[in-house]
Amino acid sequence: MASEDKNKDGEKKCEEIEETIELKELSLSQIKIKKVPHLKDYIPSSQLKTVTNPLARNPYYHPTEAFYISPSYDILLKQVLYDFSDTNRNPSYGHVLAYHRSGPRKLVYFDPGDVKAAIVTCGGLCPGLNTVIRELVVGLSDLYGVTKIFGIRSGYRGFYSYDPLPLTSKMVHNWHKRGGTALETSRGGFDLCKIVDAIQHHEFNHVYIIGGDGTMRGAVEIYNEICHRKLNVAVAGIPKTVDNDVGIIDQSFGFQTAVEIAQQAINAAHVEAESAVNGIGLVKLMGRSTGHIALHATLSSRDVDCCLIPENDFFLEGKGGLLEFLEQRLKENGHAVVVVAEGAGQGLIPRTEEERRDDSGNPVFLDVGVWLKSELNRWWKRDHPGELFTVKYIDPTYMVRAVSANATDNLYCTLLAHSAIHGAMAGCTGFVAGRVNGNYVYIPVKEVAQAKNVVDTKDHKWGWVRSVTNQPDFQGS
Amino acid sequence: MASEDKNKDGEKKCEEIEETIELKELSLSQIKIKKVPHLKDYIPSSQLKTVTNPLARNPYYHPTEAFYISPSYDILLKQVLYDFSDTNRNPSYGHVLAYHRSGPRKLVYFDPGDVKAAIVTCGGLCPGLNTVIRELVVGLSDLYGVTKIFGIRSGYRGFYSYDPLPLTSKMVHNWHKRGGTALETSRGGFDLCKIVDAIQHHEFNHVYIIGGDGTMRGAVEIYNEICHRKLNVAVAGIPKTVDNDVGIIDQSFGFQTAVEIAQQAINAAHVEAESAVNGIGLVKLMGRSTGHIALHATLSSRDVDCCLIPENDFFLEGKGGLLEFLEQRLKENGHAVVVVAEGAGQGLIPRTEEERRDDSGNPVFLDVGVWLKSELNRWWKRDHPGELFTVKYIDPTYMVRAVSANATDNLYCTLLAHSAIHGAMAGCTGFVAGRVNGNYVYIPVKEVAQAKNVVDTKDHKWGWVRSVTNQPDFQGS
Amino acid sequence: MASEDKNKDGEKKCEEIEETIELKELSLSQIKIKKVPHLKDYIPSSQLKTVTNPLARNPYYHPTEAFYISPSYDILLKQVLYDFSDTNRNPSYGHVLAYHRSGPRKLVYFDPGDVKAAIVTCGGLCPGLNTVIRELVVGLSDLYGVTKIFGIRSGYRGFYSYDPLPLTSKMVHNWHKRGGTALETSRGGFDLCKIVDAIQHHEFNHVYIIGGDGTMRGAVEIYNEICHRKLNVAVAGIPKTVDNDVGIIDQSFGFQTAVEIAQQAINAAHVEAESAVNGIGLVKLMGRSTGHIALHATLSSRDVDCCLIPENDFFLEGKGGLLEFLEQRLKENGHAVVVVAEGAGQGLIPRTEEERRDDSGNPVFLDVGVWLKSELNRWWKRDHPGELFTVKYIDPTYMVRAVSANATDNLYCTLLAHSAIHGAMAGCTGFVAGRVNGNYVYIPVKEVAQAKNVVDTKDHKWGWVRSVTNQPDFQGS
Amino acid sequence: MASEDKNKDGEKKCEEIEETIELKELSLSQIKIKKVPHLKDYIPSSQLKTVTNPLARNPYYHPTEAFYISPSYDILLKQVLYDFSDTNRNPSYGHVLAYHRSGPRKLVYFDPGDVKAAIVTCGGLCPGLNTVIRELVVGLSDLYGVTKIFGIRSGYRGFYSYDPLPLTSKMVHNWHKRGGTALETSRGGFDLCKIVDAIQHHEFNHVYIIGGDGTMRGAVEIYNEICHRKLNVAVAGIPKTVDNDVGIIDQSFGFQTAVEIAQQAINAAHVEAESAVNGIGLVKLMGRSTGHIALHATLSSRDVDCCLIPENDFFLEGKGGLLEFLEQRLKENGHAVVVVAEGAGQGLIPRTEEERRDDSGNPVFLDVGVWLKSELNRWWKRDHPGELFTVKYIDPTYMVRAVSANATDNLYCTLLAHSAIHGAMAGCTGFVAGRVNGNYVYIPVKEVAQAKNVVDTKDHKWGWVRSVTNQPDFQGS
Repeated sequence: MASEDKNKDGEKKCEEIEETIELKELSLSQIKIKKVPHLKDYIPSSQLKTVTNPLARNPYYHPTEAFYISPSYDILLKQVLYDFSDTNRNPSYGHVLAYHRSGPRKLVYFDPGDVKAAIVTCGGLCPGLNTVIRELVVGLSDLYGVTKIFGIRSGYRGFYSYDPLPLTSKMVHNWHKRGGTALETSRGGFDLCKIVDAIQHHEFNHVYIIGGDGTMRGAVEIYNEICHRKLNVAVAGIPKTVDNDVGIIDQSFGFQTAVEIAQQAINAAHVEAESAVNGIGLVKLMGRSTGHIALHATLSSRDVDCCLIPENDFFLEGKGGLLEFLEQRLKENGHAVVVVAEGAGQGLIPRTEEERRDDSGNPVFLDVGVWLKSELNRWWKRDHPGELFTVKYIDPTYMVRAVSANATDNLYCTLLAHSAIHGAMAGCTGFVAGRVNGNYVYIPVKEVAQAKNVVDTKDHKWGWVRSVTNQPDFQGS
Repeated sequence: MASEDKNKDGEKKCEEIEETIELKELSLSQIKIKKVPHLKDYIPSSQLKTVTNPLARNPYYHPTEAFYISPSYDILLKQVLYDFSDTNRNPSYGHVLAYHRSGPRKLVYFDPGDVKAAIVTCGGLCPGLNTVIRELVVGLSDLYGVTKIFGIRSGYRGFYSYDPLPLTSKMVHNWHKRGGTALETSRGGFDLCKIVDAIQHHEFNHVYIIGGDGTMRGAVEIYNEICHRKLNVAVAGIPKTVDNDVGIIDQSFGFQTAVEIAQQAINAAHVEAESAVNGIGLVKLMGRSTGHIALHATLSSRDVDCCLIPENDFFLEGKGGLLEFLEQRLKENGHAVVVVAEGAGQGLIPRTEEERRDDSGNPVFLDVGVWLKSELNRWWKRDHPGELFTVKYIDPTYMVRAVSANATDNLYCTLLAHSAIHGAMAGCTGFVAGRVNGNYVYIPVKEVAQAKNVVDTKDHKWGWVRSVTNQPDFQGS
Repeated sequence: MASEDKNKDGEKKCEEIEETIELKELSLSQIKIKKVPHLKDYIPSSQLKTVTNPLARNPYYHPTEAFYISPSYDILLKQVLYDFSDTNRNPSYGHVLAYHRSGPRKLVYFDPGDVKAAIVTCGGLCPGLNTVIRELVVGLSDLYGVTKIFGIRSGYRGFYSYDPLPLTSKMVHNWHKRGGTALETSRGGFDLCKIVDAIQHHEFNHVYIIGGDGTMRGAVEIYNEICHRKLNVAVAGIPKTVDNDVGIIDQSFGFQTAVEIAQQAINAAHVEAESAVNGIGLVKLMGRSTGHIALHATLSSRDVDCCLIPENDFFLEGKGGLLEFLEQRLKENGHAVVVVAEGAGQGLIPRTEEERRDDSGNPVFLDVGVWLKSELNRWWKRDHPGELFTVKYIDPTYMVRAVSANATDNLYCTLLAHSAIHGAMAGCTGFVAGRVNGNYVYIPVKEVAQAKNVVDTKDHKWGWVRSVTNQPDFQGS
Repeated sequence: MASEDKNKDGEKKCEEIEETIELKELSLSQIKIKKVPHLKDYIPSSQLKTVTNPLARNPYYHPTEAFYISPSYDILLKQVLYDFSDTNRNPSYGHVLAYHRSGPRKLVYFDPGDVKAAIVTCGGLCPGLNTVIRELVVGLSDLYGVTKIFGIRSGYRGFYSYDPLPLTSKMVHNWHKRGGTALETSRGGFDLCKIVDAIQHHEFNHVYIIGGDGTMRGAVEIYNEICHRKLNVAVAGIPKTVDNDVGIIDQSFGFQTAVEIAQQAINAAHVEAESAVNGIGLVKLMGRSTGHIALHATLSSRDVDCCLIPENDFFLEGKGGLLEFLEQRLKENGHAVVVVAEGAGQGLIPRTEEERRDDSGNPVFLDVGVWLKSELNRWWKRDHPGELFTVKYIDPTYMVRAVSANATDNLYCTLLAHSAIHGAMAGCTGFVAGRVNGNYVYIPVKEVAQAKNVVDTKDHKWGWVRSVTNQPDFQGS
């Protein structure tokens, strides 16, 4: 349509125009639906018992047909970003992924009276852990009438080191208002054989595992071993990572709460910086491999001058470097705030011989915050001897991890836990409950254990997000 | 695949299986891309000036090719939920909607030195309003170098009733930490002719309008009139509704903050209820046509026994009614908490003759909280004379609306404002900046002005979400 | 000393001069020490058993001589404000009051193994109630080794209506983090005979009563009846009033927390008011007989234009009235915030015949907030027809009462509870634990039940405090 | 009275008995009233101008006689704790101290039109600094009509290094909602001659100095030099110390807020500790010479197992030591929380040669938190090799200092600032505005500069306060 044409009749031209485009490049046969493993995959149906969902018998609740998720009606297309003019486009966009939608099924594969559930939390703390535990207990108990629910203490090692802790709806009533995990947690302690033996020994047939990527890799192994032993045990994971570094899902639970508290630390750093002469506020935030918390807190707070993340290298000296930038900000505003994700700048920090490699051969992880603080002080003394200057350094890590979940995360944890319950009751196994594009779905745990969510600094999204902060890109020099 | 087959080799069977399904029902020609109106739709290109995006000249920032959004590379497919086995499926799912992605363009249609921007806020308060204003000012000023930015005071009437208020980056520096709107707001005052006259008189060529559905309908008229007058003026809207009742977009800004504060009111009601003998905590939350705040706060808080929303009728007396349910909860727990959205139960409240119709012929909006409180007291006195009972009623409306945005909403407001700026600079007009499926896009304002976001009580999603609260569905009797 | 003299040697004159004044008017014999009742007042010593304080056996704690409060060394002089030049001074200042200091005694009058303690909470909620309960339990249990500790449910009526609830240190562990009272509370239900019968029946010998002035008057009766029956039962009160209307003590527990939350409501009202054209924010705060919360929140917030309290009459119309003042503030600032204590203006509100007297013959208590809101709207419509105007009315009462105590109040509640325990263990009875001039003391409950703490509007303190808010004094017209 | 007598008539005996004691040891001539220096002490009255307090002309405010503080009617007796049976009592209790009460005087020594006020903040941050500044500006401007008010930037050095910053009531309007100091602050920079020269040069006649003990010692020198030069300049101090280590006054402003935030850090440490196996939460809090914040936060939080303060030595190894105690707590509860004031344990930390003395000859201040963390880890590895153990260490210092003041502190800051203004207007100088026994008074700055407020570990108060925490006293072994 020529613009001259349009201008003949302005009013009509203002109307919305729906353009219809033929998408030649997208072959429908490329839509891949991610199947969720199911107990019937490896257990003969004769050995599986199905019962009507007990929700049907709730006196106040009248489930309609639409209430249940039908096996075929549970497809979610993953969003696709597609440049239709560009035939050389990244082939990973060439197909559309779909996941099964979570929710109650009409038929369940466990008689609630037979269910014996185990819940375990592994790894570091994250806001919302107790909400997930609480909802697993309350959901199993109040919705399905399960009475045998147990907490495994202190992470994976708890399966074989401690007695399971009986949990009731009443007992966990207020847990969602507490930070941390009432079941305790620990790193490591993964001993596949002992764990599956313990599952068999205690006759658990629902195993809910809450933890990070390492924990999910353990869950894959447990699931595989359970398949191998042909046990009638549903294994469900709920990914937990305060760093938001798990792929596929929209966001990990607790992340919004973490950003909220991180923003408070930034606010304190900003107040300290602007109350001093040539004051720099420096905040180290969680994120070994990804800068999500740092990036989000920076965008939320808007008091940050520069945000350093692992995905984007930076340098100190020279043109386009951090010091030149800070010099200018101090000149303009008298103060500056720097946020650094703990994984940023690892390559810049000088290492002693023993820091070069740890026992596993990986470079030792060094404290970028402490190093940067000392570099900033060194720089100023060198370039501005005698002038006032101060760096106020804040490491709020434990204060961020240990709070209880905010409203956004509490709701999220609640629906994740209920998703997991519905899935396990329906006989799904080896899956993770997650939210994709705003919808709750089941994802094979194997996929989640491998997927990484890092900030894509090649993406235009990163570009314009960063333009908001107006910070250096460290591409110059 | 037969399950027997699978069981031959357990380990292999446990592997993830990617099923490929042929989607016969989805014709690709049904993908509709929502075109965003553009100044060149009605202004001859000879009269339009394009310049290179000034971001290219930022000394610290080196925009790469990927940074800019190309005209063709900005397609977002709206997610589709599809039951492929059901050919009678709701035809609205038969096509896929796409919106143009927001972000900076390489060419902009305004020389920043020529831009004169007006910002106006209309309607009630919502957390984040000041963040949006702040970011519009800071973004125009710091990213594009625009110097002529003005606030319109007190809503639409401000265009013709007050002098525009000059705004600078420095002046708005801390506004994102304050609730309310520093520009003041009001309802009504929409006088199309006077407003567009004022826009011409003041020579504004960017008009940013922040408001609810009524305001957006006004924005449509302003945009149409500007088209009609063939003015080189970009009109951009940012939908604001604390109730989250705007359609198409994922969620309105300020909503998460509102839920957070609403949850605090629920917590107070819960404490009051459980500290009394037969105590009922009753909280009225915003939501005339939709129960989103009530529903989300209920799921976040988990202390609510029953959540009443406009989309789901309820009744008091009889089997399956609210009173029977509360009777039982008081018997079991000694207390109960009820959350009611302000639009719920309007049909139940007895009306005087003059309450039957207001001046516009609509039923007068009555206060469901006050009515319900008195009904509960009446009920108890009737059925349990002499027994202790108390209803603690909380209406936290203004305390919810007036807080500053939390971290989640601050980030959202920031990116919405920057989206709007990039769009207007690129010559788009008659559009709204919004987030769809987690991505920032441009949507024709006309669509947004008409779309409603209500809780779909026919949807399975509502069903299983509600099963979490385990509350009556009022389908019985 | 003549000022000429002083000026001879400037440097020396700057030195601090300690003036010594002879206080002729203060006769030392007028120092009255308030004796705390003791079990030995009415029980023959032969029937009283004393044991060594079990704190002496704490393995980690080595009480020194100074640790214990000796009978003679526990005098606290009440501060005296005295105008020595004015011989007509209020005679109540003519003597100095002294109270016994609280703390552990070397000899205690109860063998911890014999103690059976009852804890009851009466009346409305107040932040910190659960902290007091928790500390009574933890203190009795962990310090003294008492094992028989019981909660009385739902106020005074709980003594004879419900079974006592056994409480343990472990059970109450987190109670200080919850608002409300875990023991439930109610008004009324005071039946002296039934209560003391129940105390005898259950063989309670420690009775801890937490409540307001009505509750304390009940405690006096209980104590008197226990004396009369010559029971070996220590009765200890902890005054609870969110309004801070209890006399003698510095401040009631929970008051600082209440002011904090009240300030949040004021902040919301301020945001609403300043975001509107001619916006008035109106906040009703607790305080039937006293305006302490209103006054403190006004001074804390500094966003209040006018604070109306019961102790200072106000009027609406005419010179020096509220409306004239608001008119001027709206003209100057475009908005105004009014805080009104619920007891203010009761004389101004028109009453129906039945509102003139309640069943007890007292004027019915009317809602000043609702009335004032409607008066303001009426006024504006009358005097400024057609002009924009809005009143945003907030009643945060339950949100103020129901929160958990802040740090300041948590500490206060903790030391009050421990004071009460030490007193009861030492055989004191009919007393209240309170803080006077920053020190924890024992006060006869009879005194506290009668003392009122109102804002003295005749005092210069009120004068200059009010000058801070710069509000009208309603003395004019 | 014999107890037999009493028992004849129980009811009567229960009545309160007011004992009257003759206080022979207290000689009234020992009451010392602390005189506040005054301009007329060194300036001939002929050179001093007095005017009526302009508050008398406030249209809405009608000051009564009682409103003004008369010169004679402003006596406050300091509380006295007296053991009347002990004639060997500490002689410091042998007299009663009195301070002049603060407030407006009828006659003021400055015509508001002539006043030129300077406000300076020195030293570290403290919650409430901006409230004090705001109230000094608003009070001078709105109450007295002073128009020439200036901020001195960046502490003492700002007098001679920067131009004074003009401040207006409008400009500071929202400052009380921000942490830090809008005037900036710094340590050092005290150059007496340059500062007083600058005061003369700029013709300041009100100098308000806000800072800690070092700053107050500077204020004494400034005041002395001003006396010496016979300048008509009122010097007023407001003591600021987040540690609460200033003597005489009840408490320093910002302290309650600091305790509130410190408690949040403790809560995080507790959550981390109880979510781990053998988890220890370790929190370092401010307090180089005093443990007030640590002690108050411990009593507020009630989650602390052991609180270490500078006033009470502790040791690690052996019977009664910290490690033995923690060992037991871990055995009992599985976790423990330790709070350490930064000044505690300085004598225990091994020092290198250069750490033994700094340039001024004092021992270098070492980081007790980092040291204790490593000692705890060393201990566990030694005594429990191979067993799980973790120390989570939190240093919340900057997050505590940088927040805005809570309601309690905002009110306090407001009244302190207004006290200071009334005093300076009345011609007082060389004084500090403070609260003593709940009353606002004027104290000679010289006294405050010397007084220290440390926790008296010899006092019974400390004894029973500590018995609440039930922690070791480190007197054993």
